[in-house]
Amino acid sequence: MVTAGSGDQVQLILTSSRDPKTYILCLESGKRLETHHGVLYHSDLIGKAYGSKVMSHLGAEFILLQPSTAELARTLKRRSQIIFPKDLGLILINLGIEPCQQVIEAGTGSGALTLVLARAVGPNGQVISYDARRDMQCLAQSNLEMAGLLDRVVLKTRDVKDGFDETDSHALFLDVPRPWDLLSQTHAALMGGGFFGALVPTANQVVSLLEGLESESFAAIEVVEVLLRRYKTLAARLRPDDRMVAHTGYLIFARAVLAREEQGS
Amino acid sequence: MVTAGSGDQVQLILTSSRDPKTYILCLESGKRLETHHGVLYHSDLIGKAYGSKVMSHLGAEFILLQPSTAELARTLKRRSQIIFPKDLGLILINLGIEPCQQVIEAGTGSGALTLVLARAVGPNGQVISYDARRDMQCLAQSNLEMAGLLDRVVLKTRDVKDGFDETDSHALFLDVPRPWDLLSQTHAALMGGGFFGALVPTANQVVSLLEGLESESFAAIEVVEVLLRRYKTLAARLRPDDRMVAHTGYLIFARAVLAREEQGS
Amino acid sequence: MVTAGSGDQVQLILTSSRDPKTYILCLESGKRLETHHGVLYHSDLIGKAYGSKVMSHLGAEFILLQPSTAELARTLKRRSQIIFPKDLGLILINLGIEPCQQVIEAGTGSGALTLVLARAVGPNGQVISYDARRDMQCLAQSNLEMAGLLDRVVLKTRDVKDGFDETDSHALFLDVPRPWDLLSQTHAALMGGGFFGALVPTANQVVSLLEGLESESFAAIEVVEVLLRRYKTLAARLRPDDRMVAHTGYLIFARAVLAREEQGS
Amino acid sequence: MVTAGSGDQVQLILTSSRDPKTYILCLESGKRLETHHGVLYHSDLIGKAYGSKVMSHLGAEFILLQPSTAELARTLKRRSQIIFPKDLGLILINLGIEPCQQVIEAGTGSGALTLVLARAVGPNGQVISYDARRDMQCLAQSNLEMAGLLDRVVLKTRDVKDGFDETDSHALFLDVPRPWDLLSQTHAALMGGGFFGALVPTANQVVSLLEGLESESFAAIEVVEVLLRRYKTLAARLRPDDRMVAHTGYLIFARAVLAREEQGS
Repeated sequence: MVTAGSGDQVQLILTSSRDPKTYILCLESGKRLETHHGVLYHSDLIGKAYGSKVMSHLGAEFILLQPSTAELARTLKRRSQIIFPKDLGLILINLGIEPCQQVIEAGTGSGALTLVLARAVGPNGQVISYDARRDMQCLAQSNLEMAGLLDRVVLKTRDVKDGFDETDSHALFLDVPRPWDLLSQTHAALMGGGFFGALVPTANQVVSLLEGLESESFAAIEVVEVLLRRYKTLAARLRPDDRMVAHTGYLIFARAVLAREEQGS
Repeated sequence: MVTAGSGDQVQLILTSSRDPKTYILCLESGKRLETHHGVLYHSDLIGKAYGSKVMSHLGAEFILLQPSTAELARTLKRRSQIIFPKDLGLILINLGIEPCQQVIEAGTGSGALTLVLARAVGPNGQVISYDARRDMQCLAQSNLEMAGLLDRVVLKTRDVKDGFDETDSHALFLDVPRPWDLLSQTHAALMGGGFFGALVPTANQVVSLLEGLESESFAAIEVVEVLLRRYKTLAARLRPDDRMVAHTGYLIFARAVLAREEQGS
Repeated sequence: MVTAGSGDQVQLILTSSRDPKTYILCLESGKRLETHHGVLYHSDLIGKAYGSKVMSHLGAEFILLQPSTAELARTLKRRSQIIFPKDLGLILINLGIEPCQQVIEAGTGSGALTLVLARAVGPNGQVISYDARRDMQCLAQSNLEMAGLLDRVVLKTRDVKDGFDETDSHALFLDVPRPWDLLSQTHAALMGGGFFGALVPTANQVVSLLEGLESESFAAIEVVEVLLRRYKTLAARLRPDDRMVAHTGYLIFARAVLAREEQGS
Repeated sequence: MVTAGSGDQVQLILTSSRDPKTYILCLESGKRLETHHGVLYHSDLIGKAYGSKVMSHLGAEFILLQPSTAELARTLKRRSQIIFPKDLGLILINLGIEPCQQVIEAGTGSGALTLVLARAVGPNGQVISYDARRDMQCLAQSNLEMAGLLDRVVLKTRDVKDGFDETDSHALFLDVPRPWDLLSQTHAALMGGGFFGALVPTANQVVSLLEGLESESFAAIEVVEVLLRRYKTLAARLRPDDRMVAHTGYLIFARAVLAREEQGS
């Protein structure tokens, strides 16, 4: 039986309402969570089995859970638009992310992709994340620390227009306004055949990035959008939600091709 | 510089055509790949750096790559409908899959999800996959062996209506026609708060599964569809593909809640 | 040059903001429109050419327009969920609506479809609209009167479970909670080969309606959803809106087939 | 009881197969329709009530129907990409098309939109359709004649870069590769507040058209896409079709604004 421990990041879901309200917190003896449905004391949660029902002082019922990767990303403290779970999943799978890899991203932003990559590469992998903005790096650092993932991440507070420090990386993801300005730097940081990904919000940016990829050494170029449609979960009245997120960004993927002179024999 | 070795599963992309034709093969000295664009000898590929350009005997140019997880899943030998990469990514992220976990699935099918889970849990994790059909298990075994992932997977050739052997598993995914018949067995196999997922093709099945989840001990129920829209990658004429996959299945996610008597103190 | 006359229903669009705010009003000398951007006097608008720029007393610029059918439907006074323009267009085209036809609907609701059908059948056509709720019929009457379309519409305030008064109608549309209870009545009201349509919000209702259509004499059954995706209209940053209407309802279409004994010779 | 007459354009639906095969034909005594499921003689159909079941000489059952507008457009003889029913419906509703109007389009293409507009404006309305290609105009003429709509349509075989002959038209639709080159001509042909629409397949074209509309006198600019999702119609297994049309084009709508000097008093 896995139990919640001090220092663990846990999720509480209020079960009484149909649209389940969610709280993410880091357990610390002596602290308390105040909700509109009453107070819960961390010390009452520490030692409880995950999956348990717990009560607020007003009798509202909550479920104690380990947060999913999607939930952690969705509930991050943020000061910028974060990458959505619908996109994060496809990024993992299209970049071929596995335990023990070294992967790079720029920019860090609030750290949603950083967090997801850090979980996926595991304790023996490494995520190197560049962002020129010190305030974003501090926010991401705090988010990653809370998630217990900081030891797998190297945060570098600088612009990457002069290049990345790394070479031979497995994958590199750009979440920056002008990714087409960083393609030669990106190519230099990737291993032969390395995985490139980017997210841009506008069609104009996709056009500029495709122009760049066509003139640099990249192959297997893909441009996709992911649309996630949620349903109301009442069995007697199954129907999609009335409204949905219609657009976050276009995802572009490609593979780094070695120039003749890099190929060796 | 990472090079392709004997026994490696590699991808070759024909670059001369716009819709890049892809070949997945397991390198073995003495073998050859015959394509409409000429022959390539495995021995010429072994030792080549990934990302290299290689030529067929007719002069057609190919890129030598490590296949992405998405590509491996897409090109699996199959005898059943496989789960698509657009769904696989969200499954990983919504089930909170990480290195070193134990996860369960039923049924195995051609092994697409098995493969993706096996990559995600890494060499120290384990995937246990049930399927009553011996022919499907054999096919999946061969697919997983080719991908070098068989040592992380336990294939169990039996029906699960009498229950799973495991308890306290992190996550369990059902890709079976009547998942609502397996909910108490599923609950028994999961740790408290464990992650449940399922894929069903019809709305009628979603209704039946929601009815089951409402009467069993599950919380945080979600029903979603993932739509992936691909774009043609010509910068001067950016536009979505004319046709797309409109439906694979509905994805249902939930979390196992402990009954009062299971909660301990 | 077409000018706005007293009694005309006109549209004013505020041009200063990017998301253009719209006002629909019926011109009447002596009245005035009060907006957050100042006051406009109807008497200043009467006699103005459509397409003209007009100013509020605070100097905000508006464009004077004849409202489109879509705009009229969207801005109807309503006391119920109305059918959206994205669905209305397909209904017109799939029901084969033309000038001079007689078409039937139940229920009237706020009159959005009534209005669109009344415009499409023209001054020599007729729309017969049933609704058991007197309050809805009054609201629809007021909406249709404002649009100058009341002379083409017959509103019947009664339940249709005992049948429609009409026979040999070109088309019949059901916007009611249990359309499957009205299929024999619907068949009796339609001409041979007549056009049937319905809108229901849930998948469960689609299943019930399909069961009904399968057992009654209908052919060419179709079930569709229409998704409308809007884009921000800034040329330098083309991108879809962040959020969209994800679901209004499922549209079902079919054609009435004559029983052997109805076919005549 | 409405019966099929000589010269009528009728639809026959084969009912024995689930995906109902459709035939559109113009009834002419002495002719016959040959299908894979047997022969039907036009003289056996003439005088039959619409909605009747008819048999081929091999005993296959067909339903005799008046084709819907959507069906007519879908089954047009074509030598170019036609506008799809999903888009045609929204065009009607967003351009405010009603009986008795004069509307303009360029280019004619195979005549799908021409046909839909001609049905919507009715016998007292008029559609003026420009296309520089004589072969397309001939094809459209034949399609419109078959549908009995030629008397409402004026086909003009010339380029419109020197302007349209008409002024004060209610609506104008451009289905041409470079609509941004025709915006001043379009504005001159429209009444004040007149309705403008266009369809273009690529995002690059949308950007160019938006740039043009921003610098010309247009207001209420909208860019939308319509996605139509079809469902399999088996009640026991309700699910979307596996594949769908993912893209036909972007639809752009706007209204003509009068310049100060055109506004009159």
